Amino acid sequence: MFRHQKELQFEVKVEGPDPMLARQIQEVLGGQFGEMTVMMQYLFQGFNCRGEEKYKDMLMDIGTEEIGHVEMLCSLISQLLDGASPEDQAEAAKDPATAAIMGGINPQHLLVSGLGAMPTNSNGVPWNGAYIVASGNLLADMRSNLHAESQGRLQVARLYHMTKDEGVRKTFRKMLARDRYHQYQWLAAIEELEEKKGIVVPASFPPEAEQEAQPEAYEFWSLSEGDASSKGPWATGSAPDGSGEFVYIAEPVPKGHAPNPPVPATELHHDLDEKKIQK
Amino acid sequence: MFRHQKELQFEVKVEGPDPMLARQIQEVLGGQFGEMTVMMQYLFQGFNCRGEEKYKDMLMDIGTEEIGHVEMLCSLISQLLDGASPEDQAEAAKDPATAAIMGGINPQHLLVSGLGAMPTNSNGVPWNGAYIVASGNLLADMRSNLHAESQGRLQVARLYHMTKDEGVRKTFRKMLARDRYHQYQWLAAIEELEEKKGIVVPASFPPEAEQEAQPEAYEFWSLSEGDASSKGPWATGSAPDGSGEFVYIAEPVPKGHAPNPPVPATELHHDLDEKKIQK
Amino acid sequence: MFRHQKELQFEVKVEGPDPMLARQIQEVLGGQFGEMTVMMQYLFQGFNCRGEEKYKDMLMDIGTEEIGHVEMLCSLISQLLDGASPEDQAEAAKDPATAAIMGGINPQHLLVSGLGAMPTNSNGVPWNGAYIVASGNLLADMRSNLHAESQGRLQVARLYHMTKDEGVRKTFRKMLARDRYHQYQWLAAIEELEEKKGIVVPASFPPEAEQEAQPEAYEFWSLSEGDASSKGPWATGSAPDGSGEFVYIAEPVPKGHAPNPPVPATELHHDLDEKKIQK
Amino acid sequence: MFRHQKELQFEVKVEGPDPMLARQIQEVLGGQFGEMTVMMQYLFQGFNCRGEEKYKDMLMDIGTEEIGHVEMLCSLISQLLDGASPEDQAEAAKDPATAAIMGGINPQHLLVSGLGAMPTNSNGVPWNGAYIVASGNLLADMRSNLHAESQGRLQVARLYHMTKDEGVRKTFRKMLARDRYHQYQWLAAIEELEEKKGIVVPASFPPEAEQEAQPEAYEFWSLSEGDASSKGPWATGSAPDGSGEFVYIAEPVPKGHAPNPPVPATELHHDLDEKKIQK
Amino acid sequence: MFRHQKELQFEVKVEGPDPMLARQIQEVLGGQFGEMTVMMQYLFQGFNCRGEEKYKDMLMDIGTEEIGHVEMLCSLISQLLDGASPEDQAEAAKDPATAAIMGGINPQHLLVSGLGAMPTNSNGVPWNGAYIVASGNLLADMRSNLHAESQGRLQVARLYHMTKDEGVRKTFRKMLARDRYHQYQWLAAIEELEEKKGIVVPASFPPEAEQEAQPEAYEFWSLSEGDASSKGPWATGSAPDGSGEFVYIAEPVPKGHAPNPPVPATELHHDLDEKKIQK
Amino acid sequence: MFRHQKELQFEVKVEGPDPMLARQIQEVLGGQFGEMTVMMQYLFQGFNCRGEEKYKDMLMDIGTEEIGHVEMLCSLISQLLDGASPEDQAEAAKDPATAAIMGGINPQHLLVSGLGAMPTNSNGVPWNGAYIVASGNLLADMRSNLHAESQGRLQVARLYHMTKDEGVRKTFRKMLARDRYHQYQWLAAIEELEEKKGIVVPASFPPEAEQEAQPEAYEFWSLSEGDASSKGPWATGSAPDGSGEFVYIAEPVPKGHAPNPPVPATELHHDLDEKKIQK
Repeated sequence: MFRHQKELQFEVKVEGPDPMLARQIQEVLGGQFGEMTVMMQYLFQGFNCRGEEKYKDMLMDIGTEEIGHVEMLCSLISQLLDGASPEDQAEAAKDPATAAIMGGINPQHLLVSGLGAMPTNSNGVPWNGAYIVASGNLLADMRSNLHAESQGRLQVARLYHMTKDEGVRKTFRKMLARDRYHQYQWLAAIEELEEKKGIVVPASFPPEAEQEAQPEAYEFWSLSEGDASSKGPWATGSAPDGSGEFVYIAEPVPKGHAPNPPVPATELHHDLDEKKIQK
Repeated sequence: MFRHQKELQFEVKVEGPDPMLARQIQEVLGGQFGEMTVMMQYLFQGFNCRGEEKYKDMLMDIGTEEIGHVEMLCSLISQLLDGASPEDQAEAAKDPATAAIMGGINPQHLLVSGLGAMPTNSNGVPWNGAYIVASGNLLADMRSNLHAESQGRLQVARLYHMTKDEGVRKTFRKMLARDRYHQYQWLAAIEELEEKKGIVVPASFPPEAEQEAQPEAYEFWSLSEGDASSKGPWATGSAPDGSGEFVYIAEPVPKGHAPNPPVPATELHHDLDEKKIQK
Repeated sequence: MFRHQKELQFEVKVEGPDPMLARQIQEVLGGQFGEMTVMMQYLFQGFNCRGEEKYKDMLMDIGTEEIGHVEMLCSLISQLLDGASPEDQAEAAKDPATAAIMGGINPQHLLVSGLGAMPTNSNGVPWNGAYIVASGNLLADMRSNLHAESQGRLQVARLYHMTKDEGVRKTFRKMLARDRYHQYQWLAAIEELEEKKGIVVPASFPPEAEQEAQPEAYEFWSLSEGDASSKGPWATGSAPDGSGEFVYIAEPVPKGHAPNPPVPATELHHDLDEKKIQK
Repeated sequence: MFRHQKELQFEVKVEGPDPMLARQIQEVLGGQFGEMTVMMQYLFQGFNCRGEEKYKDMLMDIGTEEIGHVEMLCSLISQLLDGASPEDQAEAAKDPATAAIMGGINPQHLLVSGLGAMPTNSNGVPWNGAYIVASGNLLADMRSNLHAESQGRLQVARLYHMTKDEGVRKTFRKMLARDRYHQYQWLAAIEELEEKKGIVVPASFPPEAEQEAQPEAYEFWSLSEGDASSKGPWATGSAPDGSGEFVYIAEPVPKGHAPNPPVPATELHHDLDEKKIQK
Repeated sequence: MFRHQKELQFEVKVEGPDPMLARQIQEVLGGQFGEMTVMMQYLFQGFNCRGEEKYKDMLMDIGTEEIGHVEMLCSLISQLLDGASPEDQAEAAKDPATAAIMGGINPQHLLVSGLGAMPTNSNGVPWNGAYIVASGNLLADMRSNLHAESQGRLQVARLYHMTKDEGVRKTFRKMLARDRYHQYQWLAAIEELEEKKGIVVPASFPPEAEQEAQPEAYEFWSLSEGDASSKGPWATGSAPDGSGEFVYIAEPVPKGHAPNPPVPATELHHDLDEKKIQK
Repeated sequence: MFRHQKELQFEVKVEGPDPMLARQIQEVLGGQFGEMTVMMQYLFQGFNCRGEEKYKDMLMDIGTEEIGHVEMLCSLISQLLDGASPEDQAEAAKDPATAAIMGGINPQHLLVSGLGAMPTNSNGVPWNGAYIVASGNLLADMRSNLHAESQGRLQVARLYHMTKDEGVRKTFRKMLARDRYHQYQWLAAIEELEEKKGIVVPASFPPEAEQEAQPEAYEFWSLSEGDASSKGPWATGSAPDGSGEFVYIAEPVPKGHAPNPPVPATELHHDLDEKKIQK
């Protein structure tokens, strides 16, 4: 069960309205790597967690924090929209400056939400449940979390340069710091999990079953011409878990046959000329 | 520019049809972490790559390989569908066993694709461009790649137990081995990049700008009751880059104010009773 | 079966082109509460209606009217686009005023539809079948219809201020009047249905089955700090159907246990350390 | 800012696994009217609320409660999935009973979430931000809330009959009671708002602007043959706000012209034969 | 403006319920090539038509007919669902035959629509505005229409074998005949348009602008190994409009350079090591 | 299996940056008829092809070429974005010209992709698997291909006028030429297939089954008032395959009954008043 406290986690106080910026900021609220994503991802991972209590508790701690981040961004976007009005569009015909702003805002901020934030990205595409990951495998999921925080902090860093408004920037600095902490957090958790089980996800797939495919677990196949890729640490030396040596396959050869599917039943109506079908 | 060779990368030869399994396998073809995702993710990262040639070349090598994995899975799914027929549905009313199979298949494999694989997941949801990531920041993107290969191998491992068909399992073993290699590959690349620039993405966000928010970069906020989360490596000790010490905040206090947005212009038609608005 | 008459239901004649306004108007054509939504919602409710003839007939009357509203909006949007040309983009580099307009239009109006309306919202997101509701329960569905007409009229009212074009405004006035009528219509139908069956949807869920949960049907749980919500008519007095008295729970206490799911079978590859699982 | 308490709001304890039921229940978690929808809808309405404090507080109270409902349903679904295993698919070929269950479950519960709940509906379609409504107009939004709770309770009532599991039914009874209360709550709030401003949304659209369209605000247009619809309260008597009398138009006549759009510029490549264009 | 007549275009009377078939039939109602698609496609083409009156009128004739096809399919699906009940799920645990049927139906037909048809495909994916095409270029659009009717008739033909119910089959025969007519219709229209303007869409793109690229308009590039493709009519002989001769390029060579994008501004945070960037 | 060559198929070298044009060009990369669509469509058709080798080979040839077209467009978009920077947004407040450009670009090109192309259309809507068609019926699919190339070339032709940049135009000319060739190619293939099997898809649906519906295969139903449509080649003369004569039905009469569905079981909670249900 959850509870809500009126105050925001961090201060959100902008110097002035900027509806174009409000549109851009929607990306880190309702985009692929916005706060809605990490909120729902951590909550679902926490709700579904079947492992040790310390992981479940930690996921619930951070998931709960992220609900508050969604709240902060909604407040930030509302403030940047304050003062915008439908009449701007009617003015746009006369004034290029007004037209420029009108063209740059999200029309739904006026028409649909009435100056409120929306669960959509910077192009107005609705947030989608397929953005999140909760697989039950802790190492896989924490890698997902690290990747989400990396993309998320990158986007906030890019946004930071999009404004000179010191109030907005102050909120962004707090977010950048939290995203930094969250990267540390997942890195620390990942290190612990890798030490316990190994670095390959999932660790529990029976190695003997994969036996005959051992060579393929260490080969780099050069399928794009040029050999620049042979210079990387993925092409020479030992695998990170020391289980084998990398091999650079400069001239890869396919190991299968060309597929040759049979003609289906007439009821599927492929209208194929059976006698001309390849054998 | 690309070229195609008729032979499949690995052998794909099933022992017998299994249209229900064909439906499940769609997940690793056209699902969130299916082969279409890694194919498009690596290709877009490669096409857009602005960094060192060895990374770009490597991305093109593996992206090109993944097109071939999409091809292999299409062949696998087609083989498992061979012999399925629309008439099964007409038989289902009479025979529970037929009904059971009919209920478990993807109806679009009969109606839409005529026994071919589709660009959709195991529930028939179409593959979506929002599954992929290509940000331009190499470390962020390689973390995305590692996470995708982790989720992908996990799903193939689960699928492995869903069949006793030795032909299918053989193809899965090859895929598991390649997914293992690809995890090694991204781990090796990530290690190299972290050594160069540091472990926080993006490294280039000016540290001085984040100055005032330093404490927040090391604090764990316990927002879910209980203190199990205080036992993890994210709550005590040094940050992984040694830049500071973690602090466990057992009783977090909000640092902002409660938001209090003004009433908007009449043209937005909120119908608010202005004199009763909170101050 | 349906028939079409060439004339539009109401006059649509704009004073001049305004491609930016055309983009905004897409919201009330192909958005969440656009005319496509009410058209499809009423038609599906009518097609599926299993109740009294007068409701089915009424749904078909209004559903059929709404097809004509889609037609009117298409004509309106086309007129506002007349004269727009791909060459505007080529001019934009030289002229900020042209750039402003170009930035504010929907690029698909030029590239995809060739100056025609599209089945998308003001941000170009395609109309979606999940916007509509047709549950078979008449009261539930008429509440859906009232809500859709409320949101729809609100959006047209906001749009009204976005233009000074008296031709556009005239069409909007007709739409506002019809949306007003449609609100009246659903209000009247709802009142009749509530009188027959009661105000809770669905009325037919056996009350005895819900017996033990009676208290929860009258309690307001204050889960956000502060007691301002105790001042509302939902917190004191009788339920609208007089079946009980509201209770304001100032300090709610959870009534369930903390969940503690078991570790799944190895074949699910959660990679959990079984001995450390919480009991 | 939010906080989390470990205990669930209500008890969730199923008698035994039922993975097919788990799939159905996804509808009321991640479907159009599932708990994710009301949670996000109330939170966004609360975050964006610009009106009286008592409404904002109330929205935050109930929005916060709904996060806990998402949590409860995740626990319920997990329990119903306990014991499911990927090997069921491998058994399905041999055993119709296993095949029947396998066909009826959501394959992603095995492959993607590892026996956890997902942010998707009963067909696996991901939850979508376009399910929610937060317009800023309180009356419009509370009508949306009433409609959502009506559809939601209807679906839970239908689900109730889908199981004999007394543990599941007990949780459903609590949900049905809460959904009943929430209908009462919105009805009470709506009544208060309608008394203040009137029953038409938005109340603030200037009546004089709509003047010339007065007749259309009271007319029922019979566009489907038959006159059964003339028997309803929407066809005779006064409008619910007493502002006018309804008129039943038995033979509606269009009031506009047939549209006749001009041929666009050559650069749009319509390839029209200009001399044959209708005047 | 539109009008509705109570009778269906053709008789729809099934012999008995078949909820699994009802699910399959959703494909031709709300799928990519279902009746909703052709209905909306023809209506939007008609609404937006800027060409000769005979085309616009014809589009409106057939678009209006298709609304009636959506109506027929809704009736068909409802009839096949008659008698289905939520209690089937509760029985499924005990009875494989019931489980098989329950697994094969669309759960939303019970939970969401209450035995009504839905605007979704056979997997429950909602119909989407991006399924339709209305470009303004008549030849392009009529080719879209021919393709849609071809896919649509193919799917109905496949469905035909899925049932022995003579009532369902009778309705399908009418649909197959209409789909046949509609293919004739578009073929006849296409022939007329091609004769007027030529066979390449769009005809009006200035040929002189394409001058330097003339060779590329006649070359077949063999980018997949093997020369079977050299045997087709696309590889030898004249182009269908006689404007040139086909050339089979057995060993295609790229004509561009390898791309080499510059490093972006620091504010984009790619974290690239500038001195190692390729020249 | 596939291989990649570093050089682009055609030269891509723009004269200067134009981020607004970059946004528009996304339509022909990741839109409904963009290069991603034809690439995936031809590859899936090729992978799934069960017919003659020459068709499969040809599909693989062209599918492989289209991967290279995606690559070219990514390069084109990147070049047009070169030099764009997040700081433009911060400047927009001061300068209408900057605001105009900022409003016209895709914010995700800055925030998400870091100046790279994205798998989305010109409005930022992600590419979707439901854009493609691969049915197994060769004639149906080649008609799909012809339609896709027609819409695609139309869009490129419109884009052509959107720029004066001679570098961009040069690339477009190559694309226009290839799209012209691809139209020729599908036209040639279609002609061959129609000669073999007839012009109706699918040819194999048993004609005797459709017997009783013969009239409906030749009738034009005039359901929109006016008789302009009687002037077209679809209304008089012989069907294109000479199998019958067209009939223009000026006053169509429905041939079915009005539907009258029964009231469903109580457990579906329609809350209908049974005694008032129509007979």
